[in-house]
Formats: sequence, C-alpha cells, structure tokens
Amino acid sequence: MPVVPVRFQARKTVEQVEEGSDLAPKFDERGLITVVTTDADSGELLMQGYMNAEALQLSISSGEAHYYSRSRQVLWHKGATSGLVQSIQELLIDDDQDCIWLRVNVAGGASCHVGYRSCFYRSVPVGADFEKKQTAGHVKLEWTETKKVFDPKDVYGDAPNPTIL
Amino acid sequence: MPVVPVRFQARKTVEQVEEGSDLAPKFDERGLITVVTTDADSGELLMQGYMNAEALQLSISSGEAHYYSRSRQVLWHKGATSGLVQSIQELLIDDDQDCIWLRVNVAGGASCHVGYRSCFYRSVPVGADFEKKQTAGHVKLEWTETKKVFDPKDVYGDAPNPTIL
Repeated sequence: MPVVPVRFQARKTVEQVEEGSDLAPKFDERGLITVVTTDADSGELLMQGYMNAEALQLSISSGEAHYYSRSRQVLWHKGATSGLVQSIQELLIDDDQDCIWLRVNVAGGASCHVGYRSCFYRSVPVGADFEKKQTAGHVKLEWTETKKVFDPKDVYGDAPNPTIL
Repeated sequence: MPVVPVRFQARKTVEQVEEGSDLAPKFDERGLITVVTTDADSGELLMQGYMNAEALQLSISSGEAHYYSRSRQVLWHKGATSGLVQSIQELLIDDDQDCIWLRVNVAGGASCHVGYRSCFYRSVPVGADFEKKQTAGHVKLEWTETKKVFDPKDVYGDAPNPTIL
C-alpha cells in the first residue's frame, strides 16, 4: 500500500492553533521543531531532538520516530544504525504547535549514544541540597544511572561522536 | 542566608562533558538551553521551554523553575503571575549538556497558559491509525484533556497571549 504523504495546515489564527483540530506545526527559522521523547511505559525522558517537516511527516505516516540530526545535517531514522528503533505509541503537539511529544517503546531499551537507557543520566542538586553540596558555587553532577545498556564502540564502531563542544 | 551564585565549568573535552561530573552546560547562539518539564509524580510532559544562564542559576539555587521567555524576552519565574509555581524535585542534564530535564510538582496542578494541566492536550494519529483517519493527507488533532483546570482570563486577565503565529 503506498504511504499517503502527511499534509499540514497553514497557521492562520491563535484560536485555530491553540483550540482547533488543525495540525499546523510551527517550524523555526532553521526549519525545525523541537521534539521531546519519553518512554511510554516508565514516563522517563529518553531524549530531546528536532524534526524538520519531512521527519515529522515520516514519523506520523510510519509510526516510527524520525528526527533531523543537527550535527550531521541529515534526516535520521532513529535506530537505523543501532537497531534501537522507537515505536511511537502516542504523538502529541503543544498549545502553540511548536513542540512535539513522542511517547515511544524502544527496541533494546536504550536511547543514548553514550550507552545509557536515557540521555539524562546525571542530576544537579538544587535548592537546599545545592547550598549544602556546593563549593564556591560549583557542584558535582550525580549519576542516576550507573550501568550502560550497551557499549557504544560495539554499536557505532568508529562513527564520529555527535557531541559538539 | 545569602544565596550562593551557581557557577558553571568551561567545556573542554567530550569526555569531560559526557562522562564527567562537571556542570558545563552549552547555551546556544541565542544564549539559551532547552528545558523539558515533566510532572514528578505522573511523568506527564508539562511544557518545553528555555533557560538562559541566569534562569538556570536561579532554578538551581532556589529549587523553583525559572525560564527565559522568548516571546517576552525576559527572565520568567514560572508562577509569578499565575501562582502555578513549579517546585523542582529533580534537575537532570543530558549527555552533551545542552538540555535540562526538570521533574516538578506544580502548585495548582496546571502548567499551560491555555488552562490545561499540560501544554500537550492534543494528539496526532500515527502509522496505521493515520492511514485510516487521514483525508488527502490531512488528519484532525484529537483531545487528550477535555477539561481546563482554570480559565486563562481569570488568571492572566488582559495580558497578551504568548503564542506567535
């Protein structure tokens, strides 16, 4: 069966965008929309990425998460290299339609290129805890995951690390 | 007790940023870092926003969420107008330290200026569900929350709507 191309509506009024049923996403000056991806079962935040129009269209029509990689500047079918495909259980859009929330199940259970389950494996102490632990305003990050799900070298080999300083 | 100003480390190596305990956040060319805010109890995504350095420092030192409002171009202590303050239960940072995850409790239970609990109150059908429901590639958004927690007029009065078309 041929895949039907997904079409968006033009953004006309605030009421249409916030209170209506039109899918009228706002892409920024780079042509991108912010994406937040959580584990559909645990609610854990897995990653935050971006989609261009094509990635959003493919995510909707295929039911698998596609992103736009800013560091590699390519359309990115998540899991194409690592096998860690994200199956979309629910795709939501926010009030002003400039952010997408994906609730996904991940084959293999990991989402982070460093090898952890989530990209968010370190926390920062806040409030009274910050006051207690800081030294001259500096605090140490604390690990919330201590065990990697996979070894990045096994999965990505010599592919360049996407992190930009 | 005087509040200690929070200090960040310089970003030196990928290993330091990804595998170390230094808090070395990356602010983009606008001076902003992306923030994802979920309900600490339900795991529900409440909102996605931005912080500048000052907002991140104040969030850490006070334990209450501060953002930078792009539409109003001001530091924004969430809840200062609406009373819907976000108390930070956990603040996490991602692998390359360009995204913050706040797990919060919200006084009053709502986070969205439209009046819903979450900014993400509409979903888009995906995959087979999209194929079934689409007409010439167009689909209607579906409501996941049907009842507003508050009336925006009561809370914000005549303040301008932050949504930009």
